[in-house]
Amino acid sequence: MPTITAARSWYPDYDPAHGFAHIRRVYNLCERLGREEDANLKILRAAALLHDAKSGPDVREEHHIASAEFAQQVLHAEGWPDDQISAVQHCIRAHRFRDRTEQPQTIEAQVLFDADKLDSIGAVGVVRALAYAIFNGQEVYFSPSERFLSTGEREPGEPHTPHHEFIYKLRHIESQLFTPSGKALARQRHHFLVHFFEQFDAEINGLC
Amino acid sequence: MPTITAARSWYPDYDPAHGFAHIRRVYNLCERLGREEDANLKILRAAALLHDAKSGPDVREEHHIASAEFAQQVLHAEGWPDDQISAVQHCIRAHRFRDRTEQPQTIEAQVLFDADKLDSIGAVGVVRALAYAIFNGQEVYFSPSERFLSTGEREPGEPHTPHHEFIYKLRHIESQLFTPSGKALARQRHHFLVHFFEQFDAEINGLC
Repeated sequence: MPTITAARSWYPDYDPAHGFAHIRRVYNLCERLGREEDANLKILRAAALLHDAKSGPDVREEHHIASAEFAQQVLHAEGWPDDQISAVQHCIRAHRFRDRTEQPQTIEAQVLFDADKLDSIGAVGVVRALAYAIFNGQEVYFSPSERFLSTGEREPGEPHTPHHEFIYKLRHIESQLFTPSGKALARQRHHFLVHFFEQFDAEINGLC
Repeated sequence: MPTITAARSWYPDYDPAHGFAHIRRVYNLCERLGREEDANLKILRAAALLHDAKSGPDVREEHHIASAEFAQQVLHAEGWPDDQISAVQHCIRAHRFRDRTEQPQTIEAQVLFDADKLDSIGAVGVVRALAYAIFNGQEVYFSPSERFLSTGEREPGEPHTPHHEFIYKLRHIESQLFTPSGKALARQRHHFLVHFFEQFDAEINGLC
């Protein structure tokens, strides 16, 4: 079983969006949801520790594919049987919000998906969306246009900001989770997230 | 009168914490509070545009002092009378939370102080505190220790994070504003800020 200490070395030292703090939170959420959903915790813990291991800017393949391949190497070297390695790889390949070609079929894959997505909403979701934007030099203060709100297409010159990411992706996460325990946790985080961007927009526009 | 276009050139192109977006919001808040408080809007607008103009990493003097000196140069070149330049400089020198040697004596200085501090709380305050931390490579995810909460001193190895900045400074801002209109706006922003860090801490610690 990969240890938390070993896993730490697979992630960058400083990345508030996708660094090891994210992995630890997803790991803890997997423990919690995994018990409630009666999932195989060995599969789930390995999947949690490995799910973003190959996600740096040098990854040409999509990070979920590259991380699943890396998981194969790590677990094979540890002597895991092939069926368990495949189960971990399925969790990792199916965790990506933007790629739905492989849907989570097992309860372990559904729990990893939900745990990973829970860490994208709530106050932590706000922090990660901001950290990603700031790391990538994106604008932070720009209210989405009417056009973007109604069609998802930006006006000419309209930047992509954390608020745009909220409209495009983050506000839809709650409705796309799989497990009852994940959905129960998501409700309050979702409402907090919505409240945050409403308040942010109102302050930016001098309404409160 | 310095124009908004001229003022833009005094601030860095990209700084989500102290860049020009902050200046514009403070300017707009100064207009709003300034009308309600019957302040001199000419003094106030110039002070708002100039108040952080010299705040880069190359400023050896404290930024409020250096910006007040820069204001003297800019307004003198525009032919402003000395007493009006002094009034603007007083606003700028007295706006700093961490230096109380020059307290805001005039209504214009009190409005600038309040407008600048309103932009440090609420959802915008959260974003700016995070942006500052990420720009400076600070840790983002670390709950303040019991020792820090009770004494303001960190445990050995305890990082300074946005949450620590909230405990040390941001939660005290509401009670230190000067004007009735500033205090009225601060109330809801303060509650939002407190709610944010409570939620953030609960998520980090797996409590919700």
